[in-house]
Amino acid sequence: MTIGKKHWAIAEGYIPPDDPAKPREFISHEAACLLNATDKDAHVKIMIYFSDREPVGPYEVVVGARRTQHLRFNDLNDPEPIPHGKDYSSVIESDVPIVVQHTRLDSRNAGIALLSTTAYSDS
Amino acid sequence: MTIGKKHWAIAEGYIPPDDPAKPREFISHEAACLLNATDKDAHVKIMIYFSDREPVGPYEVVVGARRTQHLRFNDLNDPEPIPHGKDYSSVIESDVPIVVQHTRLDSRNAGIALLSTTAYSDS
Amino acid sequence: MTIGKKHWAIAEGYIPPDDPAKPREFISHEAACLLNATDKDAHVKIMIYFSDREPVGPYEVVVGARRTQHLRFNDLNDPEPIPHGKDYSSVIESDVPIVVQHTRLDSRNAGIALLSTTAYSDS
Amino acid sequence: MTIGKKHWAIAEGYIPPDDPAKPREFISHEAACLLNATDKDAHVKIMIYFSDREPVGPYEVVVGARRTQHLRFNDLNDPEPIPHGKDYSSVIESDVPIVVQHTRLDSRNAGIALLSTTAYSDS
Repeated sequence: MTIGKKHWAIAEGYIPPDDPAKPREFISHEAACLLNATDKDAHVKIMIYFSDREPVGPYEVVVGARRTQHLRFNDLNDPEPIPHGKDYSSVIESDVPIVVQHTRLDSRNAGIALLSTTAYSDS
Repeated sequence: MTIGKKHWAIAEGYIPPDDPAKPREFISHEAACLLNATDKDAHVKIMIYFSDREPVGPYEVVVGARRTQHLRFNDLNDPEPIPHGKDYSSVIESDVPIVVQHTRLDSRNAGIALLSTTAYSDS
Repeated sequence: MTIGKKHWAIAEGYIPPDDPAKPREFISHEAACLLNATDKDAHVKIMIYFSDREPVGPYEVVVGARRTQHLRFNDLNDPEPIPHGKDYSSVIESDVPIVVQHTRLDSRNAGIALLSTTAYSDS
Repeated sequence: MTIGKKHWAIAEGYIPPDDPAKPREFISHEAACLLNATDKDAHVKIMIYFSDREPVGPYEVVVGARRTQHLRFNDLNDPEPIPHGKDYSSVIESDVPIVVQHTRLDSRNAGIALLSTTAYSDS
């Protein structure tokens, strides 16, 4: 059984500026969780879009057959790091079907709550 | 490669009333993140729906080719500001395909947690 | 332009037990945000599903033409209130297309964070 | 009326390591909320995918006709418990249509906020 699609987009993107001395599990970050439930490795290319300049990428990632990868945008470095505190979006292409979910953990400020969802479209 | 749709809706809408002296990154707000991954500018029109009066709009926004815009509903002023502390919804139309994601940051009260998702529909 | 569907489901449902003396904007609650962007009133019927007994409903709501209604499950009383602290799900039917988004505000405990999303399906 | 699909995926998965002495409603957990609005029992099989080893499963669950089950991944034990503090994903198959929603409650650290959504795909 195959589940997934080859083209994905995440319109929201924002890495909260944070203290780099925090432990990895609690430092503010954004992730694209990439599930490859197929029996072939997924060669994934990510383009990052900004509000005020041309897109950057592709960032290239391999997600093994029957594996998941919770990719932190904070960890992307090639061709260049993604700036913190700046709005961005991402478009993700894979050569085999994958499933993509977006998450953010924000630990800058104990006083905030967040919600997000992809909006609804039928045409 | 083109990704996106031309018609979008966000059923949830609520700008928490907050202290305007807070810094911009932490003041309570709602945003529609608009990704235009095409090679043409997107001319976007937003209608705002209320519980107790006729819709207001269109609010007009241009998202450049290959750009993202994280549009705060708090910043919409023409034809009129969106009231804070009132339920609303939005319908978003674009002349080229875009991708839309909804977010809220609520910093009124440190004691709350939030979740949200577009519901499921297949017919 | 019409946007929406006539049949919706929200698999998650849980009204956190909370102190009824809290102000309405901060008491823990769940809502179904219902957007009717059509030019006809929407006659909406909601069935509530439980883990250990037969479904209850329909709860009936009218969302006016070109109106939104952020319906709190806490406020549903006919045929019976929805119990707090119990898992439920909901199925929502409308006679005209609507858009539905689910939200929860949880103010029981300042120490929690929440996330939720409808899962991915393509078949 | 039938609503739902037979194949679902949740790309995000992470059970925060937490103090097992916390009360059940507040201990950190992840859940798949499974709604079976049909008139037949749903026989559900869940496969768990990891970043560094072969998938584990199927975990088998029955959701009765016209019932919901808010299944905690923390409670899955057969064939083996899901490790805490490790990234995973899940693929969920049912023999009748169901609706699936993903949630996490994180109570490790009062200073964090979370958001998540399934990304957007149209091809």
